[in-house]
Amino acid sequence: MTTIGFIGLGAMGRPMARHLAASGFTVTGFDPYAPVDRLDGFERAHTAAQAADADVVALMVATPTQAESALGGPDGVLAGLRPGAVVIVMATVGLESVQAIAAQVEAASGLVVDAPVSGGVRRAATGDLLIMASASPDAFARADATLDALGGNVYRLGAAVGDGQRMKLVNQLLCGVHIAVAAEGLAYAESLGVDPEQALAILSSGAAASFMLADRGPRMVAEEFDEPKSAIDIFVKDLGLVRAEARLPLPMVDAAFERFAAASAHGDGRLDDSAVITTYTRIDQEEHA
Amino acid sequence: MTTIGFIGLGAMGRPMARHLAASGFTVTGFDPYAPVDRLDGFERAHTAAQAADADVVALMVATPTQAESALGGPDGVLAGLRPGAVVIVMATVGLESVQAIAAQVEAASGLVVDAPVSGGVRRAATGDLLIMASASPDAFARADATLDALGGNVYRLGAAVGDGQRMKLVNQLLCGVHIAVAAEGLAYAESLGVDPEQALAILSSGAAASFMLADRGPRMVAEEFDEPKSAIDIFVKDLGLVRAEARLPLPMVDAAFERFAAASAHGDGRLDDSAVITTYTRIDQEEHA
Repeated sequence: MTTIGFIGLGAMGRPMARHLAASGFTVTGFDPYAPVDRLDGFERAHTAAQAADADVVALMVATPTQAESALGGPDGVLAGLRPGAVVIVMATVGLESVQAIAAQVEAASGLVVDAPVSGGVRRAATGDLLIMASASPDAFARADATLDALGGNVYRLGAAVGDGQRMKLVNQLLCGVHIAVAAEGLAYAESLGVDPEQALAILSSGAAASFMLADRGPRMVAEEFDEPKSAIDIFVKDLGLVRAEARLPLPMVDAAFERFAAASAHGDGRLDDSAVITTYTRIDQEEHA
Repeated sequence: MTTIGFIGLGAMGRPMARHLAASGFTVTGFDPYAPVDRLDGFERAHTAAQAADADVVALMVATPTQAESALGGPDGVLAGLRPGAVVIVMATVGLESVQAIAAQVEAASGLVVDAPVSGGVRRAATGDLLIMASASPDAFARADATLDALGGNVYRLGAAVGDGQRMKLVNQLLCGVHIAVAAEGLAYAESLGVDPEQALAILSSGAAASFMLADRGPRMVAEEFDEPKSAIDIFVKDLGLVRAEARLPLPMVDAAFERFAAASAHGDGRLDDSAVITTYTRIDQEEHA
């Protein structure tokens, strides 16, 4: 029976940990901010070190900084890690951070799988995530059952920690730009007097279709931003990580990053990322005021 | 039996005219540059005026300038147009141009349907286009059989000429940005050492998916640009038309427009629009040379 310490119980982490518990794993969750209740179906540890006393430690925190603070210190993952245990980095932390984590975990006699995920809250809850994973064969052998429980598509991309993050950065590049242009297109439609709901139906049936337009578009049109599936600040972070690895000009990313950063600077960082449309409609309203 | 004069026999126009002829309409085609052969299944007129001696005149030229020159002069559509005939503007010409065309056609006692299309060459050949149409009820009544023969989805958006173009501009905004970011994402993948073919498969199965990534991505990866389904210069024109109607900042469009314009300036305007990826890979090669 595999035991799993699950670190990070946010919008994605909690349903993932719940799904693992429901799938028969013995899960102990830890999050410095989020409590655990009976519905979650797993126990809460008092520290990350306590949660890390397990066969598998899954890291699903929001930022590289959170990952580092979950790892270090007397109450951190490294303090509780069993020799030979595997740490699965499921957060999008970028290349530099995942390599630093790997060095620390390996120094503590642990193994590392670099395995960021995509797919959103709904697929997190049903074990249907897209997982972009890289690790040594030994590390994979210890993580496979957990990965297969969480992922509908688990891509094993190679042996080098970092390859998972690289693939995820490419994914986030497209996702971030697609959300920003969905906002720009729907705001433009409205500015021309085109009904946004009708536009959304037409666009989604043709060459203009994207997953993000179909998923975020209805929330943009309805202006429902208060129950974030994924927050504005996630894309400020993720497109920042994309830019940090840029070896060529990325003008589409730069333009999208500026929209998310502007929304965050306006105080909307914790709203749903579809709220990026307000960076267009607000300007419009101000110009017409 | 409806007779149709089909003006403009380019990459899209020819398969559309062929499909109409194969569907039982009596079609006469005209294009100043493109000849007609036996395989097309329809006759060629010597002038636009001669082709316009029909119940329906379909305009499927490439630019607003071509539309104006097809219309005017002693050999133009207006010189041959029957009173009460309907002109269907199927090209993406923008608001100003379609309204100028409508004024001229109505002065010649014709009716106008504003009906730009989307969907690409393959769907043009099978009558499965997305058509965004606006017109008076009288004009629609005379054009409906032709529209239904060409379109898998024919959206009737209202009575005002211009509403079709408006919807098409929103569509092209998204299409142009999606092509540019597909190029940027695949070039970025390659710069990180991620295999572009594997990346394409993974991205297309998740939240990063778009119609354009799936359609243009394989041509970008294979670097097959010589048989244009839709050319670079089409997006230079269409994103230019989008920008001409901008009443709010459009940073995503601006960034995409610059990529297509850079490719065109490099002499690649007549290549397939997937060649926009060379504006990334060329820089990359030059930097590493």
